[in-house]
Amino acid sequence: MVSETVNKKWVLKKRPEGYPSIDDFDIVNSPIPDPKHGEVLIKTLYLSLDPYMRGRLRDAKSYASPVGLGEVITGEVVGRVIRSNYQSLEVGDIVTAHIGWQQWGSIPGQMVRKVDSQKPPISTSLGILGMPGLTAYFGLLEIGKPIVGETLVVSAASGAVGAIVGQLGKMMGCRVIGTAGTNQKVNYIVDELGFDGAINYKTQNVESEIHKLCPNGIDVYFDNVGGEVTDIVMNNLAMYARIIICGQISQYNSVGQEQGPRNLWALIRTRSKIQGMLVTDWERKHEQARTRLSEWVLSEKLKYKEYVVEGFEKSPQAFIGLMNGENFGKLLIHVSE
Amino acid sequence: MVSETVNKKWVLKKRPEGYPSIDDFDIVNSPIPDPKHGEVLIKTLYLSLDPYMRGRLRDAKSYASPVGLGEVITGEVVGRVIRSNYQSLEVGDIVTAHIGWQQWGSIPGQMVRKVDSQKPPISTSLGILGMPGLTAYFGLLEIGKPIVGETLVVSAASGAVGAIVGQLGKMMGCRVIGTAGTNQKVNYIVDELGFDGAINYKTQNVESEIHKLCPNGIDVYFDNVGGEVTDIVMNNLAMYARIIICGQISQYNSVGQEQGPRNLWALIRTRSKIQGMLVTDWERKHEQARTRLSEWVLSEKLKYKEYVVEGFEKSPQAFIGLMNGENFGKLLIHVSE
Repeated sequence: MVSETVNKKWVLKKRPEGYPSIDDFDIVNSPIPDPKHGEVLIKTLYLSLDPYMRGRLRDAKSYASPVGLGEVITGEVVGRVIRSNYQSLEVGDIVTAHIGWQQWGSIPGQMVRKVDSQKPPISTSLGILGMPGLTAYFGLLEIGKPIVGETLVVSAASGAVGAIVGQLGKMMGCRVIGTAGTNQKVNYIVDELGFDGAINYKTQNVESEIHKLCPNGIDVYFDNVGGEVTDIVMNNLAMYARIIICGQISQYNSVGQEQGPRNLWALIRTRSKIQGMLVTDWERKHEQARTRLSEWVLSEKLKYKEYVVEGFEKSPQAFIGLMNGENFGKLLIHVSE
Repeated sequence: MVSETVNKKWVLKKRPEGYPSIDDFDIVNSPIPDPKHGEVLIKTLYLSLDPYMRGRLRDAKSYASPVGLGEVITGEVVGRVIRSNYQSLEVGDIVTAHIGWQQWGSIPGQMVRKVDSQKPPISTSLGILGMPGLTAYFGLLEIGKPIVGETLVVSAASGAVGAIVGQLGKMMGCRVIGTAGTNQKVNYIVDELGFDGAINYKTQNVESEIHKLCPNGIDVYFDNVGGEVTDIVMNNLAMYARIIICGQISQYNSVGQEQGPRNLWALIRTRSKIQGMLVTDWERKHEQARTRLSEWVLSEKLKYKEYVVEGFEKSPQAFIGLMNGENFGKLLIHVSE
């Protein structure tokens, strides 16, 4: 059944300084790993590339261990079970698993999630029905707790997480404003996703746009980027605002120690709250959330956009592009049919 | 009954740039104001000086309007009722009231709080049984929510608020570490108040002391100062930490716009929360809190220290000293017997 014999994988050659470069990655050939007792062998169909991976390339305190030099880069894939030594999974099953940037992986069946391949396309299991969708759902609903009539600002609003946050905000009756880095993205979130307004943070004056678009201040800020956009939001909070810290991509490639939080006075003035989150914090509610998101996708209440790069070899280039906002929608590598 | 005829008051002459100076204040004589219907005439015994007042001297967005030029500086006093046109208050009653930096004031009786003059000294109504005590109580207990065994760090720990926060933390079984700016203060919080450790942020390496004193990270940080101490705490949070933003005195006298929050990544890593507060947010619980604090003061479970400056004329100097940490304990101006 396994006619191929080579497993290509991307490993960390050296730790990036600032923005990653192609030279930081190495592609190596290895044998296709035999599944041990309780394991399944998975063939990768799509590899998910996500901003959090930048943190794993850094040897710093984080919520997860860094990737070691010479080790395969962390990542989740959706793939097909090719051999199974695990009773609840059969050959041909479609599953998601954290096997990293490689074409094949053997992993304990318990650590694999089976995907309903009849429902939305299987690629969505890495996007709107996967980690990014659940991140949007729990961050907004469990920490942001928006109510009808409130103003929600989302940074990186056309991204895998931001686009879902904004649409959920609209479903809850919020005024939703997004920031993004190209006119195409800005038009998309307004015209296609129904946001009330959008700001191109690269070409527009964010401060005056925020004043114009959020005349009553910002009740909920879903932050994927950090840096200057967040500075401006902090000066425009409504009373009792909630800020969800989901990502800080503007800072991931900076060199040197970041300064701690300043302008915290704004929190006293408005009695607001800033809270960090990880999607794994609500694991017991994941299935419920996935069911809801899936229904909304099928009924087209929620739209999603994928940015699919063909070919496993292009993974590092695509990842570097992600750090620069070159993708438009959820970034996936199409590895095999 | 009113044999004196002159009411001295301190007014704002010009807005301070950076640290306030004596020249920013003016003392003026005015007639003792007659109480109108429903008002009481109060003679100031003690005037409370507090860091928040720096914000009122600035013409910026805040939770309260700024003091206008030529207007009396905002402030709370404890005083004696000398004339009463309000049915629930009698001549001789001891009350607290926000009449500002002046020797006499007429104010609606509804806006006055009667003090039990038999219990702890009346000066405590501006300190441990007043705004600072309630701020410590609600900030720590309602936002910080410490539990036994957790590590609590308090900045400005010998101050009017910090000293109470730390003692409440000890009563709840926490490991309590404080920061302060003189060796005398540092010794006081350990030797007299029972803190587990203290750091002189002016002479010691705060980062290495934090590592030493908080080996399991910081679960609750009660922040009165902001700036560099807060930067270091942010890098040493335990999982699910709570940061109470009560004050930011290190920033109150800075000129120019502050940068917004950075290193928010630490919040994702630890899923922590930063929240701003004002004591008025829990007004319906004030009496309950005051009763508890009062019992703890009388039973000597809570200690307090006052720094009393004699003479109303010295108010501006004392206030400038407060900005520089020259006081040691709750700063009060003794205005009259």
